[in-house]
Amino acid sequence: MQKKVEVIHPKTHLRVLSRYEIQQLKDFSGPTHELLRRCCYAVLSAGSQNDNYLDLENEFRDFNIEVAQEERGIVLKLTAPPASAFVDEQIIRGVREQLFAVLRDVLYAQDSIIAAHRFDLENSEDISNAIFHLLRNADVLKPDRESDLVICWGGHSIPRHEYQYTKDVGYQLGLRGLDVGTGCGPGAMKGPMKGATIGHAKQHICDGRYIGITEPGIIATEAPNPIVNELVILPDIEKRLEAFIRLAHGIVIFPGGPGTAEEILYLLGVLSHPANQNIPFPIVITGPAEAEPYLRDIDRFIGDTLGPQAQQRYQLIIDDAKAVAQVMKTGTHKVREYRSLIEDAFFFNWSLTIADDFQRPFDPTHDNMAKTELTKTLPQHKLAANLRRVFSGIVAGNVKASGIHRVQKQGPYQIHGDPDILAGMDKLLTAMVSHGRMKIQGDYTPCYEIVKS
Amino acid sequence: MQKKVEVIHPKTHLRVLSRYEIQQLKDFSGPTHELLRRCCYAVLSAGSQNDNYLDLENEFRDFNIEVAQEERGIVLKLTAPPASAFVDEQIIRGVREQLFAVLRDVLYAQDSIIAAHRFDLENSEDISNAIFHLLRNADVLKPDRESDLVICWGGHSIPRHEYQYTKDVGYQLGLRGLDVGTGCGPGAMKGPMKGATIGHAKQHICDGRYIGITEPGIIATEAPNPIVNELVILPDIEKRLEAFIRLAHGIVIFPGGPGTAEEILYLLGVLSHPANQNIPFPIVITGPAEAEPYLRDIDRFIGDTLGPQAQQRYQLIIDDAKAVAQVMKTGTHKVREYRSLIEDAFFFNWSLTIADDFQRPFDPTHDNMAKTELTKTLPQHKLAANLRRVFSGIVAGNVKASGIHRVQKQGPYQIHGDPDILAGMDKLLTAMVSHGRMKIQGDYTPCYEIVKS
Amino acid sequence: MQKKVEVIHPKTHLRVLSRYEIQQLKDFSGPTHELLRRCCYAVLSAGSQNDNYLDLENEFRDFNIEVAQEERGIVLKLTAPPASAFVDEQIIRGVREQLFAVLRDVLYAQDSIIAAHRFDLENSEDISNAIFHLLRNADVLKPDRESDLVICWGGHSIPRHEYQYTKDVGYQLGLRGLDVGTGCGPGAMKGPMKGATIGHAKQHICDGRYIGITEPGIIATEAPNPIVNELVILPDIEKRLEAFIRLAHGIVIFPGGPGTAEEILYLLGVLSHPANQNIPFPIVITGPAEAEPYLRDIDRFIGDTLGPQAQQRYQLIIDDAKAVAQVMKTGTHKVREYRSLIEDAFFFNWSLTIADDFQRPFDPTHDNMAKTELTKTLPQHKLAANLRRVFSGIVAGNVKASGIHRVQKQGPYQIHGDPDILAGMDKLLTAMVSHGRMKIQGDYTPCYEIVKS
Amino acid sequence: MQKKVEVIHPKTHLRVLSRYEIQQLKDFSGPTHELLRRCCYAVLSAGSQNDNYLDLENEFRDFNIEVAQEERGIVLKLTAPPASAFVDEQIIRGVREQLFAVLRDVLYAQDSIIAAHRFDLENSEDISNAIFHLLRNADVLKPDRESDLVICWGGHSIPRHEYQYTKDVGYQLGLRGLDVGTGCGPGAMKGPMKGATIGHAKQHICDGRYIGITEPGIIATEAPNPIVNELVILPDIEKRLEAFIRLAHGIVIFPGGPGTAEEILYLLGVLSHPANQNIPFPIVITGPAEAEPYLRDIDRFIGDTLGPQAQQRYQLIIDDAKAVAQVMKTGTHKVREYRSLIEDAFFFNWSLTIADDFQRPFDPTHDNMAKTELTKTLPQHKLAANLRRVFSGIVAGNVKASGIHRVQKQGPYQIHGDPDILAGMDKLLTAMVSHGRMKIQGDYTPCYEIVKS
Repeated sequence: MQKKVEVIHPKTHLRVLSRYEIQQLKDFSGPTHELLRRCCYAVLSAGSQNDNYLDLENEFRDFNIEVAQEERGIVLKLTAPPASAFVDEQIIRGVREQLFAVLRDVLYAQDSIIAAHRFDLENSEDISNAIFHLLRNADVLKPDRESDLVICWGGHSIPRHEYQYTKDVGYQLGLRGLDVGTGCGPGAMKGPMKGATIGHAKQHICDGRYIGITEPGIIATEAPNPIVNELVILPDIEKRLEAFIRLAHGIVIFPGGPGTAEEILYLLGVLSHPANQNIPFPIVITGPAEAEPYLRDIDRFIGDTLGPQAQQRYQLIIDDAKAVAQVMKTGTHKVREYRSLIEDAFFFNWSLTIADDFQRPFDPTHDNMAKTELTKTLPQHKLAANLRRVFSGIVAGNVKASGIHRVQKQGPYQIHGDPDILAGMDKLLTAMVSHGRMKIQGDYTPCYEIVKS
Repeated sequence: MQKKVEVIHPKTHLRVLSRYEIQQLKDFSGPTHELLRRCCYAVLSAGSQNDNYLDLENEFRDFNIEVAQEERGIVLKLTAPPASAFVDEQIIRGVREQLFAVLRDVLYAQDSIIAAHRFDLENSEDISNAIFHLLRNADVLKPDRESDLVICWGGHSIPRHEYQYTKDVGYQLGLRGLDVGTGCGPGAMKGPMKGATIGHAKQHICDGRYIGITEPGIIATEAPNPIVNELVILPDIEKRLEAFIRLAHGIVIFPGGPGTAEEILYLLGVLSHPANQNIPFPIVITGPAEAEPYLRDIDRFIGDTLGPQAQQRYQLIIDDAKAVAQVMKTGTHKVREYRSLIEDAFFFNWSLTIADDFQRPFDPTHDNMAKTELTKTLPQHKLAANLRRVFSGIVAGNVKASGIHRVQKQGPYQIHGDPDILAGMDKLLTAMVSHGRMKIQGDYTPCYEIVKS
Repeated sequence: MQKKVEVIHPKTHLRVLSRYEIQQLKDFSGPTHELLRRCCYAVLSAGSQNDNYLDLENEFRDFNIEVAQEERGIVLKLTAPPASAFVDEQIIRGVREQLFAVLRDVLYAQDSIIAAHRFDLENSEDISNAIFHLLRNADVLKPDRESDLVICWGGHSIPRHEYQYTKDVGYQLGLRGLDVGTGCGPGAMKGPMKGATIGHAKQHICDGRYIGITEPGIIATEAPNPIVNELVILPDIEKRLEAFIRLAHGIVIFPGGPGTAEEILYLLGVLSHPANQNIPFPIVITGPAEAEPYLRDIDRFIGDTLGPQAQQRYQLIIDDAKAVAQVMKTGTHKVREYRSLIEDAFFFNWSLTIADDFQRPFDPTHDNMAKTELTKTLPQHKLAANLRRVFSGIVAGNVKASGIHRVQKQGPYQIHGDPDILAGMDKLLTAMVSHGRMKIQGDYTPCYEIVKS
Repeated sequence: MQKKVEVIHPKTHLRVLSRYEIQQLKDFSGPTHELLRRCCYAVLSAGSQNDNYLDLENEFRDFNIEVAQEERGIVLKLTAPPASAFVDEQIIRGVREQLFAVLRDVLYAQDSIIAAHRFDLENSEDISNAIFHLLRNADVLKPDRESDLVICWGGHSIPRHEYQYTKDVGYQLGLRGLDVGTGCGPGAMKGPMKGATIGHAKQHICDGRYIGITEPGIIATEAPNPIVNELVILPDIEKRLEAFIRLAHGIVIFPGGPGTAEEILYLLGVLSHPANQNIPFPIVITGPAEAEPYLRDIDRFIGDTLGPQAQQRYQLIIDDAKAVAQVMKTGTHKVREYRSLIEDAFFFNWSLTIADDFQRPFDPTHDNMAKTELTKTLPQHKLAANLRRVFSGIVAGNVKASGIHRVQKQGPYQIHGDPDILAGMDKLLTAMVSHGRMKIQGDYTPCYEIVKS
């Protein structure tokens, strides 16, 4: 049977390519082509409520993407694309833009970051510069933009009432003219955008930004929804986290699973660096009334591991969407004032110091996971970095292809460390499991074991 | 106690006024000022779920609006405005625009339609010209606009699942790039706009139109929600109905009460005019599965009173939002082709013939209601006009200030006519009552009596 | 022989017309149609260097203009239009816009000013309001516009070096971001616009305004050149003069003939009103070195007739284009400050008091001319008004159809008055004749006689 | 004495820079800083009518440019900049944009073309790709642009009547909606832009393109005038020539000196390549009546050296600006059709084959000049390449720093070859000298000697 092939033309990105670039895009093969295929499939199948990696795997076996040269540039030939990306045979504009954003970022990362050898990706400052170049190439850095960007973090797998709450917060942010960025995906990453869309509409703001920031490992299970009108794909999870916090004027954290924990630990770990003490950075941890116990668990875990100073960095707000938005509005205002004072860019937080512990990619092999030290004797900021890595490994074991395969083959990750820390961590992970925050559908089999020594 | 006064500046409309016009706006007094006050209050209190006229009456006793001259134009001084119109002390942009739209239309109607004596408002052709001038002055006629306008009608008081369905239809319309117009107000008038907003966002359409078309008598209880980015106030219900059908490229009708019945009768009555036989005009009557019996009642009532030919004019679609949007998309396409063929404007359906029975304002006094003939011997088109008037009277008795006062004083309207017609009507009205379509809150006491002779 | 007919569609103005308005445009007949024909011919034949009214008369006998309804609006059918308005069979965009501007203003004046009876055109305040409405309808009043408008006056018939100087001044104005308005026509009305175009281009200002303000009696001989991107036609010379000074943020006066003298007398006459004493209004009288004696004559004439106070109102700058532009730049800045202080509009100088002597149309019949008193016993402001009328009559006798016919029939106008005043006037008029400022081509036969009593 | 320092902020280009790039810009030293200084001085002193390199040299000794980091990006600090770049202490916008365009192109060439090692600049295809990347980075490649680009070539040193003719041609091009590109500088490179500005203004085209394409060696003496709203600096003369012909939809050649001869030989040489036979490329050689003999000389020289086939490629039009523009209009139309047919880009002529003889930089040392073969036995296309080089050397000897210094030190270049060819060349060069086309001011001392063997 002939599979359906759709031909898609670029409307915004990649309309002016050199022959050299067209050749590169056509020649992507092996791992790069597989990466492209996976990312594009994710974009096309957004709206699916399934985060079961293996299910999606089966569904997309037939799918293929091919870059062809035609007329004055490139076209994408999609074989057996998911029907949900189309309306009456026409691809949804938001989806189309995202497809070409994927290509754009993969091409740029290969050609101008990695192959060009302009950046020494072992060097901290070069990493930050490379991220800047990637974001600029994605046209995400807007020097004339007056509104502030609130990054929203939280679980992709959340109950209905939490989802509604993320919409309420998004609506209140939108009413205050704030833009929204998330990590793409369903749940707490989609709700704030839908809410903000309505808030912006009521304020007649027609250029609201809905920024999705993702990376190839996660996009397959956390696809950008088509409201995302600026999508950028960073090469790995660490660069994605850095992009989040250098772009954000403020961050709202909703209940979530280990991915959200990873994000919190990263953020608070970075901010605990002495050089960052005086940098204003509004952070709110929030959820509806029902989520209060869970949020208090997280708060306690932070207190236990990173100490009360880390807790000073954020506000815990229960069930008050309007208050969250007001804190962001006044907080981001202070951020602007500070940037102006120290002459830093509004569109990129250069002044933040990020230690290379947080920048260097962490590969969650069983060995690396086992070796990660979680002891109270570590400096706080070092402990935060290691905790971040452990949660990152758990995310991989839950939803990323490479992690799942490893766990299938080698069994659960073994996590070692100080009993107190492990106890707090265990409690939090157990709560995540019992709240169904590990995955959307089906029962959850842990990909890790806490090894109390 | 000092009441709070807010000062609002125009951003779009009424920024360039002559002294003459400023004087006129400042001088509005008596009935015109009361009308302004009522309309503006409605705009400011949008979002309220209350359609109880008398409740609103109490709430807005303290409210006042004053036009003042300041600097280079006018400002509005609002005394004791509803808090819901403000976000952190700032008026919502959508609300602000609507306030000035109210002023704009009231001023223009007074100054350029009524006082200017340019139009003989007893003459059919002049009425249509006056409506055109009002719409043009409101900047609703867009010669360059390529997308089509789907007018959505339906009840303001509808159950949750019907509301969700109107959102679904709006979403599917928005995904197809169609614009949405309604009569303002909650329920079936708000749902399609919210849905279309999300649909437009996914298609990266940032200039979607959400047109609200209303009149002073109805705006108090059916306030425009702030998503409405083009609001126009016609002087009376008949001109509003004409504006609807001359602007529409297609019409979707959701379940509703007597107001919706009035609209259906008006529309099918006008289309049954011999001169309109060949004019394409896509119409869909639709609702979720639960509404099927009710929709079949309406369909039967049309068949019984206006005959099978009238039934040919629309499609009845049960629980299929996508199909509704597809019918509109292909239907409006044919409308464009036809307009091009006969060289009519895309933005105003000049070619539609509207008999003056449908144009002349009907004042639902008890006497007029009693005199309205509902007999089978009337020509179909005449019967439609009279049925429309009777339903219009019932709407007034339910939600309009003047009608409520009359019924309070003189008791229910007496409706006479042919037993068969009255029986069908009675059945439909009973169904409306039992479905809670007459008003949003509280029990419903009918404002009419069917007088079988 | 078949005459060529061109069909022109509107692109900007008059795209959304009611049937009522289309009918009016089609029905223009008698004097209104002749007025349209004359104005449109003038627009189409811009670029011609001929101001001989009778020559133009012959050339345009074949020309006709017809308004036809087609498709979704109107089209213009031009019979035997001048070839210079076309480039490779396509009408020049600037010319097309101007044609529809003519229609727009003639229609609006007829329909909304005269026929609507909204304004009592005998009443001073109503006249100003009517002018405001005309200008607003022509979209000339821009509340968001930040740049200032410099009105340039001067002769249509000037030598090459003076023309070059007007270009230099326009260039310097354009470099400073100032917009330019003139009375249309060649010479000093065209030079500043060409210069400003280059100045704006160097500053990358792509929305520079080139406003032409004219009236039906003068447009035939002083056609707008196609650079004019906003054209407005006022009903008569007095309303045009009022439009000039209410729109201007500053005025530059180049050497010219009796029309320019009329403008100077109008401007200084109005400003000498006690209510206008404190209103800042930058005025420069300027020309190249060669024009110095002539400019000194004008200066002296003003001193002799209106007194030294009138002379305080302007600066005389010889041969320094840059200085002229700098005076305008700083002067208009003060105008803005003043308007802001007294809360007057930036786009219309409401605060200027204009006595009705200056507003009421003056018909230069021989009788009216002879009756106009020019005596030293008159109050200064009254004398200015009368002098303005006499020069207005001379302009009519030189270049307007009605005036030329009267003088052909009844001989030269007889001008009476105080010998000193007449002597000064005679000297100035003689200088105008000897400098060739009366008309572009051929010898000049005076249309007036100074009758010393 | 303190020299004046002006601080200039970017408005368009280079507003979003990474720290890495800011560092690079600040660190430019040695030859790159000298190159920047020279280019920026040229931009700032545009309008000067002096092409005497040594004079300019003296004037700009005091001038310096420094890139400083400030607030959110870079600023330029200019020491002792030429006053002509400022209006009332404010830098002219066009000049400001050009300054940052210089920086942008120098930075990009260094960082992304040369240092990045992405392109093998010995390889023909890579050279073309590099040019494409440079032009794209300069935002000169516009996929949505509908109008066509006419490149105008001709002398910078031309008499007044020729200058006026280039303005007339530019005006006629502008009236037809065509955009204009030149090599910057005065004379035939400035006239068409000024003319097109007025033509565009009359057509109400407010986004007309005035593209300047230059290279560091020539910009000092041929500065871009401020009308140029897109400036791009290619690294060398050969890349500049390739940029010209890959961007052009048509080319108009006015009378000029050896630079113009170089351009003609390059263009006709490239087009004579067998692979380019069927590619439409409208070319007109034109001038006013007075220039006819000179143009006929050029025509004859082409016939004598490149043969009649080369002559078929262009039209010779004497004194008919309108005809030139019409040929371009219809010619570029065919270019568009052809590109569409072969699916080539509209904004870059990929299909043109350029032999590497024409691409490889030619360094006009005395040795290289002497070795350049000019014999009839060479294939035509090879002969064209060599003739191009010889004229390129003469241009360097006339106006480029390096060439002037060489000739000062080593005496005139010695040109060898076939007597017939040398005779024709001698005749043409003599005509250039006698017409004053070699330099603007002062007597001309030839920098070459024809060595007849």
